[in-house]
Amino acid sequence: MQKITILIHCKDRPNIIASVTNFVAEKQGNIVYIDQHVDREQNIFFMRLESEFIHDGFTADGFREAFKSTLATTFGMKWRIYSSARKPKMALFVSKYDHCLYDLLGRYNSGELNLEIPFIISNHLDLKPIADSFKIPFHHIPVTKDTKEAAEKTQLELLENAKIDFIVLARYMQIISEKLITKYPNKIINIHHSFLPAFVGAKPYHSAFKRGVKIIGATSHYVTEELDAGPIIDQGVTQVTHSHSIEDLIAKGRDLEKIVLANAIKLHTNRKVMVYNNKTVIFS
Amino acid sequence: MQKITILIHCKDRPNIIASVTNFVAEKQGNIVYIDQHVDREQNIFFMRLESEFIHDGFTADGFREAFKSTLATTFGMKWRIYSSARKPKMALFVSKYDHCLYDLLGRYNSGELNLEIPFIISNHLDLKPIADSFKIPFHHIPVTKDTKEAAEKTQLELLENAKIDFIVLARYMQIISEKLITKYPNKIINIHHSFLPAFVGAKPYHSAFKRGVKIIGATSHYVTEELDAGPIIDQGVTQVTHSHSIEDLIAKGRDLEKIVLANAIKLHTNRKVMVYNNKTVIFS
Amino acid sequence: MQKITILIHCKDRPNIIASVTNFVAEKQGNIVYIDQHVDREQNIFFMRLESEFIHDGFTADGFREAFKSTLATTFGMKWRIYSSARKPKMALFVSKYDHCLYDLLGRYNSGELNLEIPFIISNHLDLKPIADSFKIPFHHIPVTKDTKEAAEKTQLELLENAKIDFIVLARYMQIISEKLITKYPNKIINIHHSFLPAFVGAKPYHSAFKRGVKIIGATSHYVTEELDAGPIIDQGVTQVTHSHSIEDLIAKGRDLEKIVLANAIKLHTNRKVMVYNNKTVIFS
Amino acid sequence: MQKITILIHCKDRPNIIASVTNFVAEKQGNIVYIDQHVDREQNIFFMRLESEFIHDGFTADGFREAFKSTLATTFGMKWRIYSSARKPKMALFVSKYDHCLYDLLGRYNSGELNLEIPFIISNHLDLKPIADSFKIPFHHIPVTKDTKEAAEKTQLELLENAKIDFIVLARYMQIISEKLITKYPNKIINIHHSFLPAFVGAKPYHSAFKRGVKIIGATSHYVTEELDAGPIIDQGVTQVTHSHSIEDLIAKGRDLEKIVLANAIKLHTNRKVMVYNNKTVIFS
Repeated sequence: MQKITILIHCKDRPNIIASVTNFVAEKQGNIVYIDQHVDREQNIFFMRLESEFIHDGFTADGFREAFKSTLATTFGMKWRIYSSARKPKMALFVSKYDHCLYDLLGRYNSGELNLEIPFIISNHLDLKPIADSFKIPFHHIPVTKDTKEAAEKTQLELLENAKIDFIVLARYMQIISEKLITKYPNKIINIHHSFLPAFVGAKPYHSAFKRGVKIIGATSHYVTEELDAGPIIDQGVTQVTHSHSIEDLIAKGRDLEKIVLANAIKLHTNRKVMVYNNKTVIFS
Repeated sequence: MQKITILIHCKDRPNIIASVTNFVAEKQGNIVYIDQHVDREQNIFFMRLESEFIHDGFTADGFREAFKSTLATTFGMKWRIYSSARKPKMALFVSKYDHCLYDLLGRYNSGELNLEIPFIISNHLDLKPIADSFKIPFHHIPVTKDTKEAAEKTQLELLENAKIDFIVLARYMQIISEKLITKYPNKIINIHHSFLPAFVGAKPYHSAFKRGVKIIGATSHYVTEELDAGPIIDQGVTQVTHSHSIEDLIAKGRDLEKIVLANAIKLHTNRKVMVYNNKTVIFS
Repeated sequence: MQKITILIHCKDRPNIIASVTNFVAEKQGNIVYIDQHVDREQNIFFMRLESEFIHDGFTADGFREAFKSTLATTFGMKWRIYSSARKPKMALFVSKYDHCLYDLLGRYNSGELNLEIPFIISNHLDLKPIADSFKIPFHHIPVTKDTKEAAEKTQLELLENAKIDFIVLARYMQIISEKLITKYPNKIINIHHSFLPAFVGAKPYHSAFKRGVKIIGATSHYVTEELDAGPIIDQGVTQVTHSHSIEDLIAKGRDLEKIVLANAIKLHTNRKVMVYNNKTVIFS
Repeated sequence: MQKITILIHCKDRPNIIASVTNFVAEKQGNIVYIDQHVDREQNIFFMRLESEFIHDGFTADGFREAFKSTLATTFGMKWRIYSSARKPKMALFVSKYDHCLYDLLGRYNSGELNLEIPFIISNHLDLKPIADSFKIPFHHIPVTKDTKEAAEKTQLELLENAKIDFIVLARYMQIISEKLITKYPNKIINIHHSFLPAFVGAKPYHSAFKRGVKIIGATSHYVTEELDAGPIIDQGVTQVTHSHSIEDLIAKGRDLEKIVLANAIKLHTNRKVMVYNNKTVIFS
């Protein structure tokens, strides 16, 4: 048995749903999940569909071909079709903070995450012992003004050689260059330690403390060229009071960051996220 | 243009989705919303579909007939089809607490609720001035051990004469009899002032205080014969501390009760709730 | 028996707590509540103390005099002392949105709020029927560019004649002038319909929709000259998804606004809020 | 400089606060934190006070002696005085679930927890590799009906030899015996995977699924002889829908369990918890 997941978006018009479900039925697929959304402001139709196929001749590639030459053309769809046969490969970028790294590797080891981690990249050596204890290859690629370009080249080679599908910045403290972003569009997930769009940029907990907010947050989003302005995948919040120091905010925030980043990774690898107009449609 | 909402559940098997969407397409309907769920433990398929019809000959009754004699029979479906043309009629039962009443009438007056309130029934006179100020008919039907049966008869007559669709117990402090429950199955919504199934029965805030919980809740559910054990529609919670007295819990709880009850009413009137096996499927 | 509440802040130094508790004990007061906070960044000490006095000769004014000439001078304190004998008077400013108005008047009528509402002021007539049904005087004071100054004069006279203690802007859609703000420093409470500092200014739900946030919020704060930048009293949040339209955000937001504004009013009238450095210390 | 934390409870009566603050001032202590609570139902006074001492002669033991022979006697206080000089020692009990273990060891390694972990005890070998990778001694003590008594004796010897201050059951799947509970009263912290008092006992996620709740929770509490009925320290909740399977609830619950258990441990080791009448007073 094979399971495929279809993600579609196109201009909204009548009969898309019936056409797609018909198409899958003709191919002898059994639809086990269907969800749809219409952005009425933009008049865009979104759909996510999971279907199981049990007959022998079925191949995901064959299905893709048929889909592309018929439905996708008729409706002018942007589409992706994933087979459950292949686990996505994730590259983990870290710097010095260890809480997201511990959390993700703990989940990974427990089998909670449906993905592979071929390696970790860091611009510092601090977290190498953690990578070692979890037996994940660790590439130390320092980044300075002078070496930035070379460092990126090294990163890209590693990513391409390992056929990495997406990148997670688990509190990686370097700006990602345009080149990498273009190469991995909506495939680089960052965790920002504030409730975006409040407190963009560096030291958001300091800004939150100064402003005297009563709730702090964390935001996972796809990286785009504009800093901290990419499509939001998930957000979490927690209450704080005047009695919390900046250090308290940072400590409380760590728990948010861990969970919000892990949620984003799960949504991404389960093919539940579609991006349009710098926003996400999350079919959970 | 007419819009209908179809709610279906039946034993799960292949091709239900394609069959239903095909059927709607044949009837020239444009599906604007589709959602489905499979309870894999029970092997039950659930579906909610909204479709718009613009051609002249369309009637909801005609559609119902066609659906019943074909799809519903083939798949052994339990189904309901609602037309957007008719607003549901809600009877409001209250006793002495006024917070849910104020809240619901405020929302009603603002046009936030898609329903009609033909009247309010109460076993006490305390809240009559509020009903009067909102210009809603108020029926005072006292209930004592001796008058309980007669009172119920009066209630039933009022409900039937006004063609009431569903009943909301907005902190109504009387046990609803089996007769009324049987007459309005999954059509009587109660708000219970605890996070069910914790603290079933009377004085849940007192029990919560005694147990020293750090979070209190409220639960809206359909009334069944077993007390506070019906299908849960919505729940809300809020944090409390040792410093809150029972009175504080009651005050904080009022805000939960108002919102959780209003949510349940909106879900119910927007035809987003299906009940199966004493649980709800909520297509929000 | 009389109960007084003392709010103090001053430069932090040793022995303030012992000195204050000693002073109260000497005056035969029984301390029933004490809380303190030190802002270690600014080195400022904050304290809130409630004390009961049962002896005949006690007067709040006498206590104030003694406090002022001794402790307050020694430690250079900023201080306020409130007697429980006097209920604060609140002026309610509204425009066209009715949800906060309904909510506050419902609470007021139920006895949930420890305050008096001498009148409502509005720049529109739309909500007069609600004020009438709750039997609260309603002053219609239209505001246009030309009449703004005169309108404000009328407002100020009403406020002063009624000895108003604080003002609540329950979705009042006019900018409050410097004159009024100066007259009522940290005594004008606004409800802003976003999770500040995100989405300052007009139409925050539209901005939230555009940015694609997964959580929306509401913020109650004291009004200062800089728009939406005053000290935050309370914030609330709720989850949203891509499926929520702007209208959905607005509807969900109303429930947040009601509760967050009511919370702020309760904290203010129970003398639990201190303001320093454009932030609040909330002794709840 | 030494810092001590004083926890007191006694029958409520006038002048306790002034007496305690005076006493600390006489001993040349500078109070940096004070909080108090009165349970008006039981008429019990609770207090938590932190004080710094900079003079040479100060010892925590001397302070304890003086406190005991004067204030504690006068007011009939139950009290504890902790010095910041000593880190509490925690024994970690685990079985097969690894998520709380990974989480706590990650926090421990990062320096987030103010405690020492001399060893881990488990009735299974499954998690030994994790203990090893974090370099914490791991004692495998299998428990069967026949060996239960001997196993407990071994546990007790380990606990006593290492001068363990408190025990954390991080999803330890054995009932703790009366003997151990009596030896460590309010010093054994358990994490229960439901929102207590709902779903006491085994398989709470299964029960939550069956009941169809819309919110699930986790509860950290001190272990008493009655199962899952001890004083609650912290609770957390998260929303679920009909679309979540039991496995989904378990996965979502893991994140709650980790955070709620870590919170309880921090509150306990920071001396912020007092227990009375099977409830906690949490001075956060």
